[in-house]
Amino acid sequence: MTRFRYLSFLTDYGLEDGFVAACRGVAARIAPHASIIDVTHLVPPGDVRRGAAVLAQTVPYLPPAVHVAVVDPGVGTARRGVAVAAGDSVFVGPDNGLLSWAVTASGGATRAFSLTNRELWLANVAATFHGRDIFMPVAAHLAGGAQLAATGAEIDVADLVALPVPERLIRDSIAEGEVLTVDRFGNVQLSITASDAAEIGLRSGASALIRCGRHQLIVPYRDMFGAVAPGELVAYADGAGLVSIAVNGGDAAQRLGLPPGARVSMAAGSPTIRR
Amino acid sequence: MTRFRYLSFLTDYGLEDGFVAACRGVAARIAPHASIIDVTHLVPPGDVRRGAAVLAQTVPYLPPAVHVAVVDPGVGTARRGVAVAAGDSVFVGPDNGLLSWAVTASGGATRAFSLTNRELWLANVAATFHGRDIFMPVAAHLAGGAQLAATGAEIDVADLVALPVPERLIRDSIAEGEVLTVDRFGNVQLSITASDAAEIGLRSGASALIRCGRHQLIVPYRDMFGAVAPGELVAYADGAGLVSIAVNGGDAAQRLGLPPGARVSMAAGSPTIRR
Amino acid sequence: MTRFRYLSFLTDYGLEDGFVAACRGVAARIAPHASIIDVTHLVPPGDVRRGAAVLAQTVPYLPPAVHVAVVDPGVGTARRGVAVAAGDSVFVGPDNGLLSWAVTASGGATRAFSLTNRELWLANVAATFHGRDIFMPVAAHLAGGAQLAATGAEIDVADLVALPVPERLIRDSIAEGEVLTVDRFGNVQLSITASDAAEIGLRSGASALIRCGRHQLIVPYRDMFGAVAPGELVAYADGAGLVSIAVNGGDAAQRLGLPPGARVSMAAGSPTIRR
Repeated sequence: MTRFRYLSFLTDYGLEDGFVAACRGVAARIAPHASIIDVTHLVPPGDVRRGAAVLAQTVPYLPPAVHVAVVDPGVGTARRGVAVAAGDSVFVGPDNGLLSWAVTASGGATRAFSLTNRELWLANVAATFHGRDIFMPVAAHLAGGAQLAATGAEIDVADLVALPVPERLIRDSIAEGEVLTVDRFGNVQLSITASDAAEIGLRSGASALIRCGRHQLIVPYRDMFGAVAPGELVAYADGAGLVSIAVNGGDAAQRLGLPPGARVSMAAGSPTIRR
Repeated sequence: MTRFRYLSFLTDYGLEDGFVAACRGVAARIAPHASIIDVTHLVPPGDVRRGAAVLAQTVPYLPPAVHVAVVDPGVGTARRGVAVAAGDSVFVGPDNGLLSWAVTASGGATRAFSLTNRELWLANVAATFHGRDIFMPVAAHLAGGAQLAATGAEIDVADLVALPVPERLIRDSIAEGEVLTVDRFGNVQLSITASDAAEIGLRSGASALIRCGRHQLIVPYRDMFGAVAPGELVAYADGAGLVSIAVNGGDAAQRLGLPPGARVSMAAGSPTIRR
Repeated sequence: MTRFRYLSFLTDYGLEDGFVAACRGVAARIAPHASIIDVTHLVPPGDVRRGAAVLAQTVPYLPPAVHVAVVDPGVGTARRGVAVAAGDSVFVGPDNGLLSWAVTASGGATRAFSLTNRELWLANVAATFHGRDIFMPVAAHLAGGAQLAATGAEIDVADLVALPVPERLIRDSIAEGEVLTVDRFGNVQLSITASDAAEIGLRSGASALIRCGRHQLIVPYRDMFGAVAPGELVAYADGAGLVSIAVNGGDAAQRLGLPPGARVSMAAGSPTIRR
């Protein structure tokens, strides 16, 4: 019985070596029917939080799949590998928090298993390459119809490692949060949601009063980059429903010096305020 | 009725975020039969001209497809989205000129539609992510058999936005043109065609007299890089039928300081001239 | 008769141009049934040795396939193109050594042909783009069922160009070798195998005495990065069965200044030695 037509695949393996291809080859041998959708392989080496953010924001748009994610600085140590059912999908990877935000975005874990059944692994396992030798073969067997319970010993979903939920708080009409991640364009994505913005009275067309580090900014809150002049800052609700700060045609992260994790607060300003 | 087995996909989304994967997921849900050929996702952010050049030179080698291209600095503003029939394919993207050179390379637009039918879009549209929420779903529906006319209101193909055709002129046995683009290897591709070179009497084995900015160069015109010594400049007719300038084993764009758009002229020199 | 369901594809074409997509389009037209597994397209331009190392270490994990590899600084010159049968696969590319290590890893060449049959090429061949116009079309025809002998004139497998086998020698309980390659993480992969390490008495848990250039290092030999503190050097048997040197959470190549080709020697130290 084929259970999944799709695998998705996120790693920090990069694209200059053959690591991703070796994993794809393993999948092709075990589950030749399955198509693989690459989420990204350019997570900065070992950056579990970045991998978790990208995965969580992408999975809602993917078809039901076995989602394989490997950002695994502890590969080969005591951290366990897991298979986690959530929504109509299964997540496979290290139990280091990488999967946690995506599992939440998929409705939460319903069952979880520690990957202890070596029959689903490759015959030889390199201690530094569990993506190729454990995670992908297990995922491909699941796509091919193996039962989730065949992957190993069931564990309590409450025992799965979870990354801390990003800071996010509304107090006295001020939304407080942190920089969640920075995308290719240098757009700075906050943990503050579009709903939070509405709740503090910030609506498109108004200005946002933003504090971050030593900066105090008055930034137009608009629907799109093109609503401000080239080179100008703009805040907007992005494609993931989060408030982001961009420079129209430029790089806001560079301009503002705002790395992931930096604290940011935001309030609604007057629609007539202009810098 | 399935109309297209293939989608092609070109963007400036980069590969480090999940943007491309989200679009692929959308396509997989709507048109699971379709294969996606990535053209590139590394167009420099907002560089419509670069995207247009890469698309136009790649499409002739792709099978009939719905070609989705998104380099869209004006996303969410008044610029419309379009679906354009040309040759045996359909092009879907913003009407900002990005598609224009590829449409011409495919024989010219036969029909065009403004993407106004929201039934082919995702239910929720982010103002900054039309690739995921409008262009890819429309393209996937077309691949799945939707009629072109179902995408929206028909528009006059003469009203489509076109990028200026690159400068190219022959005068007094001199071919004038501009730098069209620079590839990964630093090879400088000109708007001057191999036919232009023949017309001014420049044949393989001869030398080309090239003027660009303050440079005056005598460059061997050959069939391949290896016809000159490592580190030497060479001009040649490239894989797109255009005259290009390379350094054998090196980076000509860096050596010559020639960015896209720079003016270049070329004449035939004697076969015996050597620097 | 379909002979191969898979093509694999390795080049130095990069991902910012449409070169890879044009080749994929050619394959899709000739062999629409075939799936393409990208090995990498980020081999540094013209770096045949790097391409050979990545290909040889990836192919053992790929399904039977026509493996197309193009790192071809001599494109268009007298170097011939070849199709080489080895194991259950066929390798197609320039005869410049690029294929040689992977052919060896696949059990050695059983037959080889010079690509002289233009009927399997595209009608127009650009002298600088044999990947698109010769190698990929020939490979796609092979995947579609063309006989190997149809590709051209048979040649003696002993006449195939081979890269020198990386230096590797055991003498007086010292393993001598060289840096084979450096991966995305900065891990330094040696030509010394895990078996060599065992033969000189180096076992996991012991220390390795490593000489490279002016460095003399005592490095823990362990199973995984996490066995040493963050920022510490560690030697280990990697996913390809070769001894590698890493920095846990860091970049060993940068730390040690060890480029590919650098000479390294290694001996077993006491398990109790600590720096």
